[in-house]
Amino acid sequence: MNFNYKVIGNILGILLIINGGFMLLCLGVSLYYDESESISLAISSAITLLSGFVLWLATHKKTTKDLRKKDGYLIVSLGWIVMSFFGVLPYVLSGTIPSITNAFFETVSGFTTTGASILSDIESVSKGILFWRSLTQWIGGMGIIVLALAILPFLGIGGMQLFVAEAPGITPDKLKPRIQDTAKRLWYLYVGLTFIEAIALYLAGMGGFDAVNHALTTMATGGFSTKNASIAYYDSSLIHYIIIFFMFLAGTSFTLTYIALIKRNFNKVFRNEEFVVYLVFTVVITAIVTTALMVVQDFGLALSFRDALFQVVSLVTTTGYATADYTSWSSFLTVLFFILLFVGGSAGSTAGGVKIIRHVVLFKNSFLELKRQLHPSAIMPVRISGKAIDQNIVYNVLAFIMIYILVFLVGVTLLSSMNVNFDTAFGAVATSLGNVGPGIGDVGPANNFSGMPVGGKWLLSFLMILGRLELFTVLMLLSPYFWRKR
Amino acid sequence: MNFNYKVIGNILGILLIINGGFMLLCLGVSLYYDESESISLAISSAITLLSGFVLWLATHKKTTKDLRKKDGYLIVSLGWIVMSFFGVLPYVLSGTIPSITNAFFETVSGFTTTGASILSDIESVSKGILFWRSLTQWIGGMGIIVLALAILPFLGIGGMQLFVAEAPGITPDKLKPRIQDTAKRLWYLYVGLTFIEAIALYLAGMGGFDAVNHALTTMATGGFSTKNASIAYYDSSLIHYIIIFFMFLAGTSFTLTYIALIKRNFNKVFRNEEFVVYLVFTVVITAIVTTALMVVQDFGLALSFRDALFQVVSLVTTTGYATADYTSWSSFLTVLFFILLFVGGSAGSTAGGVKIIRHVVLFKNSFLELKRQLHPSAIMPVRISGKAIDQNIVYNVLAFIMIYILVFLVGVTLLSSMNVNFDTAFGAVATSLGNVGPGIGDVGPANNFSGMPVGGKWLLSFLMILGRLELFTVLMLLSPYFWRKR
Repeated sequence: MNFNYKVIGNILGILLIINGGFMLLCLGVSLYYDESESISLAISSAITLLSGFVLWLATHKKTTKDLRKKDGYLIVSLGWIVMSFFGVLPYVLSGTIPSITNAFFETVSGFTTTGASILSDIESVSKGILFWRSLTQWIGGMGIIVLALAILPFLGIGGMQLFVAEAPGITPDKLKPRIQDTAKRLWYLYVGLTFIEAIALYLAGMGGFDAVNHALTTMATGGFSTKNASIAYYDSSLIHYIIIFFMFLAGTSFTLTYIALIKRNFNKVFRNEEFVVYLVFTVVITAIVTTALMVVQDFGLALSFRDALFQVVSLVTTTGYATADYTSWSSFLTVLFFILLFVGGSAGSTAGGVKIIRHVVLFKNSFLELKRQLHPSAIMPVRISGKAIDQNIVYNVLAFIMIYILVFLVGVTLLSSMNVNFDTAFGAVATSLGNVGPGIGDVGPANNFSGMPVGGKWLLSFLMILGRLELFTVLMLLSPYFWRKR
Repeated sequence: MNFNYKVIGNILGILLIINGGFMLLCLGVSLYYDESESISLAISSAITLLSGFVLWLATHKKTTKDLRKKDGYLIVSLGWIVMSFFGVLPYVLSGTIPSITNAFFETVSGFTTTGASILSDIESVSKGILFWRSLTQWIGGMGIIVLALAILPFLGIGGMQLFVAEAPGITPDKLKPRIQDTAKRLWYLYVGLTFIEAIALYLAGMGGFDAVNHALTTMATGGFSTKNASIAYYDSSLIHYIIIFFMFLAGTSFTLTYIALIKRNFNKVFRNEEFVVYLVFTVVITAIVTTALMVVQDFGLALSFRDALFQVVSLVTTTGYATADYTSWSSFLTVLFFILLFVGGSAGSTAGGVKIIRHVVLFKNSFLELKRQLHPSAIMPVRISGKAIDQNIVYNVLAFIMIYILVFLVGVTLLSSMNVNFDTAFGAVATSLGNVGPGIGDVGPANNFSGMPVGGKWLLSFLMILGRLELFTVLMLLSPYFWRKR
């Protein structure tokens, strides 16, 4: 056979067992709060655990063959899809979200750490189910860390090789040792930061349950909130700034955070070009938005700054929490926030979207092209953090961005053909593909996705997966070339 | 000095003399119709001729130095800007468009063959001035032919080298022989086709004056009409189809038209990949729009097809005539037509925008990138019309498209900061940069640009020039690197 189906099946089995385990955790929460949804969580967990165990049992015999690239593509795409299909169980069985379409949308939005929701009244949902909803994002975030730091560089996708050299304990060799060496340490970091944020939010006055949930969805740059008004529910500035801090951290490469917090090598962090651009960009855009809010909206400085910073960090890190309906501010800010949907956080973080490093490559290459025009024979490589980047990687990054735009336009065209209006279609597709959460138009932060047509929900679910898996992974599976035997 | 200012000045002088001459022609028209605007046309012509002559006299001493690349960039940008400054004279002096901002917008829209207008009542404008308005587009079109076929390939801009091999009598050597050999033959073709279209329109029942004006602006893919309702004014299908035919021709590379009509080598035309894509794309999109109009709007087949074909050809060739308000049809068609604003006609035609050849390179390279992912060591060049394209050209094309998108987004952000709403800002910037004419939102085909803020008009004028001159030419002048002496 062309693929190593045994290993693929084995990994999928393990994924399901992990998910089933997390559902057990939700069952615990549900029992603690004495909710009637406990029974459906128990059934969901049993089905998922059993399916995972059977799959694992059927495939656990060690094969001698190593994983190859082609297997990697399949594992990644199938992993997210299989998780999403089992992830709908708690919603559907409990009757919280009876429609399969809506439940699938909500689950995909979770596992892809997007945060777009079809729930109109979140606060009426039981705690056990809400906890599962937050956990889908947190599990998704764990998946992304492995994906970004180990699998994508191995597959050579979209310039993800660019920061591999920076990762601790990475050898440019096989897939296995990478996952083991790198991912574990960063997972500990991820778990630790979630824990710290939860405590910080609790100390700042957020309820215990809400603090844990918001910590789970912040670190995943997910953005599911347990409140209908998202973070706007809390009028404590401290809570806003704590969340801003952790969103910013979650949008930073976990490798860098590891270097900074564990190795205490801050020098290395500030020599990392992507991080510096991320920081400067956030500051500049926040300054612009603050000014706009002070001048046009006549807010005071403190409120303008807090609201500006919150929304900018939330969108740039693709988290998607909101403390204000930014689409109601002004035409300029709507356009600006729409553009922010395309930025994405740092590579190697849990953020989705295009990613800052790709924009840096794009900009540098574009301006170099002007110079190349005048001196066609001179060789002018793109330099990142002082090092010349291989032409092929630059190529790959440009192709990635092009395909991103192409997929975006196809998505908008399809969605608009289902009678969704111009700005809503633009916003919904951009926010889904970029794994942000809220969009503009009818899917702005003050609204939700329940009004989207059924076909549109499936389309947007597909786009969330496509964006989350860095396009190429999924598109590869759709190309006949991939399936050809040789 | 760094630049060959004498030759640059000399060429600008000649350009002004030519423009002054064309103004004399308008004076003739005005006198023939016995209009009071004759005197302002006479003064405009005198000022322009005199300025041109003085400039020419001051610089006409032959210098031995050849033109270099840097001079080329200056000539091109200055050429369009200087023409636009003198081109406002007839509008302002006659009082037809008293505001300098509006007059400049209208003139730039003319010389860049865009066709966006600030005139609310075109039919009340005198014939002499209307003729000048149409002529600005026709003159712009002549300029574009030299630019596209001789100057841009010499400067190596955005993949314009790709079709140079196809041009008759072109040697990859100096600038001068190219202009003389190629441009003249294609100018004769341009003049000839304009003549034939005017006669065809006249025979189809259009008045003589209108037939000439519409022929002038069709062949330039300009789109200025002498009627408020644009081509919708005429209910003769024959007139619609004649204009469709000539728009399509004007959006085809003039080199190819030359090969087809003069050399009668149709084989070569159908082996040209850009032309085939242009043809197939137009057919496919027309089929989609026709279906949408029949199903959703409940138009009959004949009307659906005619309206679909007209609007699609008008937008793809960046002409910008309208026979219907396509923004009122449906959300899907609005999005589709918005996307069409980015297509652009063929390279080497008078059409603006990104150009089809660049899209072809973009698509091929993107799909190849998926294959390259699986086999990183294999070399897979992009092939156009069967020939492998140099990596550097592919690079250049990608950079061009990226900068195009970047400029578009900056434009939208700036325009929206002047309180222009989301879809209007998107439409106005896309149509200006793409040199199309009408946009969507408040600048759709049923409206005009008079309502844009003053700053917005200057911004859009700048974008029209930027788009018309293939970005790099103008952006180069804005880069400090260009002005550095070495």
